[in-house]
Amino acid sequence: MKKIINKPGTEVDDELNGLSLLSGSKIHRIENTKIILRNNAPVKKVNIISGGGSGHEPLHSGYVGRGMLDAAVSGEIFTSPTIDDIMEASKKVYGGTGLLYIIKNYTGDVLNFTICEENLKSEGYNVDHVIVNDDVALNDMENRRGVAGTMFVEKIAGAASELNYNLSDVKRVASKTIESTRSMGIAIKPGIIPLNGKPNFTLKEDEMEIGIGIHGEPGIKRDKIRTADKIAGLLFDNINKDLKLGENDEVSVLVNGMGATPLMELFILYRKIYEILKNRNIKIFRSFVGNYVTSLEMAGASLTLMRMDDELKKLMVEPEETLYFPKTIW
Amino acid sequence: MKKIINKPGTEVDDELNGLSLLSGSKIHRIENTKIILRNNAPVKKVNIISGGGSGHEPLHSGYVGRGMLDAAVSGEIFTSPTIDDIMEASKKVYGGTGLLYIIKNYTGDVLNFTICEENLKSEGYNVDHVIVNDDVALNDMENRRGVAGTMFVEKIAGAASELNYNLSDVKRVASKTIESTRSMGIAIKPGIIPLNGKPNFTLKEDEMEIGIGIHGEPGIKRDKIRTADKIAGLLFDNINKDLKLGENDEVSVLVNGMGATPLMELFILYRKIYEILKNRNIKIFRSFVGNYVTSLEMAGASLTLMRMDDELKKLMVEPEETLYFPKTIW
Repeated sequence: MKKIINKPGTEVDDELNGLSLLSGSKIHRIENTKIILRNNAPVKKVNIISGGGSGHEPLHSGYVGRGMLDAAVSGEIFTSPTIDDIMEASKKVYGGTGLLYIIKNYTGDVLNFTICEENLKSEGYNVDHVIVNDDVALNDMENRRGVAGTMFVEKIAGAASELNYNLSDVKRVASKTIESTRSMGIAIKPGIIPLNGKPNFTLKEDEMEIGIGIHGEPGIKRDKIRTADKIAGLLFDNINKDLKLGENDEVSVLVNGMGATPLMELFILYRKIYEILKNRNIKIFRSFVGNYVTSLEMAGASLTLMRMDDELKKLMVEPEETLYFPKTIW
Repeated sequence: MKKIINKPGTEVDDELNGLSLLSGSKIHRIENTKIILRNNAPVKKVNIISGGGSGHEPLHSGYVGRGMLDAAVSGEIFTSPTIDDIMEASKKVYGGTGLLYIIKNYTGDVLNFTICEENLKSEGYNVDHVIVNDDVALNDMENRRGVAGTMFVEKIAGAASELNYNLSDVKRVASKTIESTRSMGIAIKPGIIPLNGKPNFTLKEDEMEIGIGIHGEPGIKRDKIRTADKIAGLLFDNINKDLKLGENDEVSVLVNGMGATPLMELFILYRKIYEILKNRNIKIFRSFVGNYVTSLEMAGASLTLMRMDDELKKLMVEPEETLYFPKTIW
């Protein structure tokens, strides 16, 4: 197994320690937990927590800071965070106003976060949650997974919380972001699970998986690898079946790499996405291109489109202080 | 060959078009060239140009903008930029004060940039250059390559130019950065050259290349893959043979991925680098962890250390407006 790690099973512990040392004064890891916390917690505002299995870095821990998350709670690789950690993070961030969980739509994540929500409510805390399900690869809405669009939900909810929106309004803009956001991805090479050293799926040398999930879940179909332009077209078409963008709609765009995809290839995809949107008179508000919601060293890419309105535009460009939310220089 | 591209040979053209569309108002590509230029060029200050073969993104094109480069000139994959493009970029950015080339130490790059410098001088332009040679994998100073430390040179020179340092002072701080900066890298998987579809070197399943160059050049030796902590140690030791950091020295740190390295693995390396520095009472000024100077989809990582002084510290935290220079939230 070719990985830069110490011993299989220690990688999440080691990486959280490394990440937490990257900022001298803004964030830290709570010892003996998998929580990355803002140093100035609790902040008097609605507080935002997200989390999930590790292996998707910089999601979620890289997005802790002013303007995004108050805390991120990680699990082991592709494994839900524990109830103990979610409870501890919740109490540490709670500023007395309200707490919103941003949960990706996976059974274990939803279960553990909502158990904590019930526990906390019974103790008198004001807690609510949203569930991100932006992946259009599955038609079945119930089971749609939360993928790269989660980054936008964290950004918008975090921005609203810093502007002192109350809990129901932070939830409203987070829900609006979820309704406005769709994603789809393809993979050309698998990631390797550290604990067993094995790829989490296999593809032939000329194949790609269309509609891949961020844990290597199978998608719509396996097919011959296509050109970048054709991949861009099929991602857009699948998303737009759902999002139904029309002339003069305005979108934010995320062309996201799955971890092992060179930026060069993402720029090549973005070029075509830009052209497709331009030809349909769909305006671009902001674009982000990079490896931001990943799946270990999976090679591949996803497209996320988010339909903007005036409120979302204002929130999207609020300043934030996190290590990895991408810059915009528009 | 598993790549998200259109046709081998078109990838640099396509990617530069994609990158140039990522900012609506700040940067653009000059048509029929491989130049990414600030939209407000020429700016009245000392102007900074860097460039080199493609395949190292986001270096150099991702670092064009206020506070870093006035223009980046790319070549084909791992191929020097053309004299025509360097000449055109130089004349487009020239604000009347002076022009500094930041050249990585490769024969073709040095040749083409210095030919342009001579041409421009004979036309009355005020031009100078620095040559980056931060890679300690080679003992022979003449042939030391320019690798990830180039990002720091671009940052410091760009910051000085925005503060209206004159050409000799911009060159002085760029040269000081070069003298203060050392790097070394390892690779565990090769990149794939698009034009022939072949890996640019081969390694056995249990091997790594120590002291790899950013074009896959062989390094100090090929050895069994080691733990992340041992890799961190050997990179530090090799760098410090040269840099001779002592107690109370202060450094900026770049743990750089080679393109296909997940952020998780870079955090794991950073954790150990932090510990090594702490144990030696070497202070960290700023740290950067990510895929910032890459080699196509090579997997691996490099460490760069830059000894700081008061002037370099001030310049390192000057604001910049580029797409990919990493954020600091210290």
